Amino acid sequence: MRGSTFFNRASSVFHDHPILSKLIIISTVSGGGLLVFSDASPFQSLITDSSCEDEVKTKKKMVVLGTGWGGTSFLKNLKNSNYDVHVISPRNYFTFTPLLPSVTNGTVEARSIVEPIRNIVRKKPYNVEFKEAECYKIDPANKKVYCRSSNSGETKEFTLDYDVLVMAMGARPNTFNTPGVEEHAHFLKEVEDAQKLRRSVIDCYERASLPSVSEEERKQIMHFVVVGGGPTGVEYAAELHDFAFEDLANLYPSLKSYLKITLLEAGNQILNMFDKRISDFAREKFEKDGIHVKTGSMVVKVSDKDISIKETQTGQTDSISYGMVLWSTGIATRPVIVDFMKQIGQANRRVLATDEWLRVEGSEGVYALGDCATINQRRLMDDVEAIFSKANKNNTGALDIKDLKEVVGQIYERYPQVKLHMEKNHLKNFDAMLKKAQENDKKQIDLETFKNALSKVDFQVKNLPATAQVAAQQGQYLAKCFNQMERCETYPEGPLRFRGSGHHRFQPFRYKYSGQFAPLGGEQTAAQFSGDWVSIGHGTQCLWYSVYASKLISWRTKALVVSDWFRRFIFGRDSSQI
Amino acid sequence: MRGSTFFNRASSVFHDHPILSKLIIISTVSGGGLLVFSDASPFQSLITDSSCEDEVKTKKKMVVLGTGWGGTSFLKNLKNSNYDVHVISPRNYFTFTPLLPSVTNGTVEARSIVEPIRNIVRKKPYNVEFKEAECYKIDPANKKVYCRSSNSGETKEFTLDYDVLVMAMGARPNTFNTPGVEEHAHFLKEVEDAQKLRRSVIDCYERASLPSVSEEERKQIMHFVVVGGGPTGVEYAAELHDFAFEDLANLYPSLKSYLKITLLEAGNQILNMFDKRISDFAREKFEKDGIHVKTGSMVVKVSDKDISIKETQTGQTDSISYGMVLWSTGIATRPVIVDFMKQIGQANRRVLATDEWLRVEGSEGVYALGDCATINQRRLMDDVEAIFSKANKNNTGALDIKDLKEVVGQIYERYPQVKLHMEKNHLKNFDAMLKKAQENDKKQIDLETFKNALSKVDFQVKNLPATAQVAAQQGQYLAKCFNQMERCETYPEGPLRFRGSGHHRFQPFRYKYSGQFAPLGGEQTAAQFSGDWVSIGHGTQCLWYSVYASKLISWRTKALVVSDWFRRFIFGRDSSQI
Repeated sequence: MRGSTFFNRASSVFHDHPILSKLIIISTVSGGGLLVFSDASPFQSLITDSSCEDEVKTKKKMVVLGTGWGGTSFLKNLKNSNYDVHVISPRNYFTFTPLLPSVTNGTVEARSIVEPIRNIVRKKPYNVEFKEAECYKIDPANKKVYCRSSNSGETKEFTLDYDVLVMAMGARPNTFNTPGVEEHAHFLKEVEDAQKLRRSVIDCYERASLPSVSEEERKQIMHFVVVGGGPTGVEYAAELHDFAFEDLANLYPSLKSYLKITLLEAGNQILNMFDKRISDFAREKFEKDGIHVKTGSMVVKVSDKDISIKETQTGQTDSISYGMVLWSTGIATRPVIVDFMKQIGQANRRVLATDEWLRVEGSEGVYALGDCATINQRRLMDDVEAIFSKANKNNTGALDIKDLKEVVGQIYERYPQVKLHMEKNHLKNFDAMLKKAQENDKKQIDLETFKNALSKVDFQVKNLPATAQVAAQQGQYLAKCFNQMERCETYPEGPLRFRGSGHHRFQPFRYKYSGQFAPLGGEQTAAQFSGDWVSIGHGTQCLWYSVYASKLISWRTKALVVSDWFRRFIFGRDSSQI
Repeated sequence: MRGSTFFNRASSVFHDHPILSKLIIISTVSGGGLLVFSDASPFQSLITDSSCEDEVKTKKKMVVLGTGWGGTSFLKNLKNSNYDVHVISPRNYFTFTPLLPSVTNGTVEARSIVEPIRNIVRKKPYNVEFKEAECYKIDPANKKVYCRSSNSGETKEFTLDYDVLVMAMGARPNTFNTPGVEEHAHFLKEVEDAQKLRRSVIDCYERASLPSVSEEERKQIMHFVVVGGGPTGVEYAAELHDFAFEDLANLYPSLKSYLKITLLEAGNQILNMFDKRISDFAREKFEKDGIHVKTGSMVVKVSDKDISIKETQTGQTDSISYGMVLWSTGIATRPVIVDFMKQIGQANRRVLATDEWLRVEGSEGVYALGDCATINQRRLMDDVEAIFSKANKNNTGALDIKDLKEVVGQIYERYPQVKLHMEKNHLKNFDAMLKKAQENDKKQIDLETFKNALSKVDFQVKNLPATAQVAAQQGQYLAKCFNQMERCETYPEGPLRFRGSGHHRFQPFRYKYSGQFAPLGGEQTAAQFSGDWVSIGHGTQCLWYSVYASKLISWRTKALVVSDWFRRFIFGRDSSQI
């Protein structure tokens, strides 16, 4: 830094001693009384240092694809200096996606929810290089990734070798091949989408204000349609309603009577992944607010001005004209991953599968996490005979209680569905489950009884939801595994291998659900926490503010988002079309 | 506002009682110790209410083109309820352009320097309608403007009649028809330009980080060129240098040695509209900072990777490769105005001319202000005989001192160049000027002597600079004229009409120069105030902060910009490519 001045010097104090700036922000933030849970960071490290720092080795080459929740959480927690890490992503920043709906209407600014990835990986113990590019092909046979960077109209291509590949590329929006969606609808997956959506809403207001527009056209332009009644669609509809009634109504008073917001959902209810109390409350609130909720309506086509819908029950078709449409009906696999799946023998699957250690099935040294993959939980019934024989050390053909005691813990670890099954059926312990399957109260259990007792356990295997929470936990988990890689090769800490010998190196990944929010507008939020505890209302909105402020990735983004909230509260949302 | 909640209610308190929020911000801002001149607002109203509010009339239709400094200042100060005002602008907001260079590198956010025009004209005593459209043709014969709105790929056209037309459409960047500039160079006139420029810089850093880039290419990509050594070019180069060395150098350490910033100027020195002390200081500072300043170099062609330059003195040509180029060499007339000029007989002029009351010469009911026009100051020598005969009431052919006393004040008002001439030549008063031209000390002055004495006065006529300050003062002045229109028709307050009878309705427009800043980076600024008072250094930067914070159009933008400065000071500038 040249030309050292008071400002520069004072400024560098903050840069060099981040703790100072943190203290300042803590005092600012706590003064606002918003932070309840500020100690819980999603990227908090679980593990300290790798135990193998002293070894001198040639470093392994690790390529990380993607800087979303999974990739960033992984990079933030990785501490093993035995790797040269190359990060590839089309975006040079991490986005705090849960606040994207807030960005669409200016409650929060786009720049407040992003953090440059170079900032995040700075000062990590491993060597790291970031490249802003898109991976368009993976060659697992030769352990290569092919990348392409299209900046300023110029395309550059390059390839990278890897020893370890971490795929965290996320997913693309699912259009279900509905004609016209790609061309005419908005999505809400990236910051650019949110910015476009914001401009598009103001654009509709400006177009509807022109003198050459007919009444009919004005109605069409002022009709905002949201397709998909999941958390994103519902939150967007709520944010749009607040923006329209709290801010735009004052600036465009003549358009107030033309405004219409419609939420289309193909299923029978909105927010169907939540408790029914929340779905019902959301629907009632929306109807009171004047947001038109239409369930059981499937969109079959989108043209430049009309949406064709079909009632799922009656098969009746209809057409509604619109000014702006948001498509938020879930996710699908990216083409580069579909191609990769063909190469590793997963062509018949819909989503890339990993085992419980996030290793991609059918390839070596490849890990996948977040929305781009799903964990293929091992079925217990596939291994039931191996388990029985492992437990039955003496090969007597029947297990006694002592035999079982040794393996029950291992079974719980390896097959989490067992515990879920026991909880669901109110079975106190493993013995109780076995007893239920026994005809008479024998001391010993044969294979048939064992199989019988466990036959329904696998019904509890469920895919994890495609949420930020899951991806962040997976990133953290995988980093922890790599941090302990060298130690755990010698001292494995995972469960018993029922089909092989010894133990698995690591504990399998286990998702901890801590709750989910559904903001409903008007400073009200619904939330569902673990144990099906439901909370709705203004208090939950305060909780939402607290949790989101605390979960943001850096002190910078925390301070920015909190100050954005204050700005909005004092000055309202901005309607400039930039 | 539906679903009234604590937040909504509290929030509406601020909206309905803006003074409350002002108080909060005042306390915030003054706590920071930044506002020295916060009482001086550029849009402060000079005049209270129109005196003709009681009259019942059919309202006149006024069309205002443009929402830049001129248009916005006019709209903000207009208080005459006898007009129906229609505002046409391709942007639905006002931009505080002096902070655009700060936006290019994230010192200030784009949204902090804009204010929706609907917010500005809300609650004005006149009827107002805003239309986001571009005026592409003016028909002065039929008093019509033709507009076009191109939103969402759809083009709507409409026409508007006017009784009064206020043109405040600004100018376009002047490329001097240099080939390749439109295609390859960046400009810095709009918010979008600043945002593009910011993305483009980060883009260069990311491209230069790719593994497939050769050493030669990396040097080319990391060469940032600024064409034009005026205040915009100089400020941008300084901002870019600070961004690169204070923020990007930490995130892209390997690129530090490749970075090169060049400032090209066709003239002999940079900042040539400033005092030579400032020009010299700027050049020295830039060279110390490592910004390469090249004067006497004219750009003759820009291709996608190279700039061809020609030395103005030697005629020697050269070519320099670049990664990003900003073109800031002044302004030119917009095509729609060129077309308008042809229709009103100004085809042979370079810029649209108005008289000193901002009325467009050759058309009726049309006013023009800001960068789109220039004031054609009446030459005294054109009227010298009329002045003489008006003063010489008794037609004696010779003036005495008493005759002159009556008209001198009127001459000063109508021809401001007289006073400038007197100041320059250290003449105490009008008599002293006349005496200088007299051969012997006669009591009476004949026409020849009178002409002789005033013959050099018109050399002092100068065009006003194309700055925000001039446009804002013109907008304020014109609004004041309209506010007093009805009263001044009966009671004119302008100077004597030397060629006609009676007085002009209003005082002619007079520009008050209050000073100009040239930020030079590293928290140093140069400034030149009226009376050629020059100030350079860190203290001037503090003054710059104070003045700009106070000049921002609304309390919202004031608060936002000040908090942006704090954010930058604490967290640095963001380098996410959004």
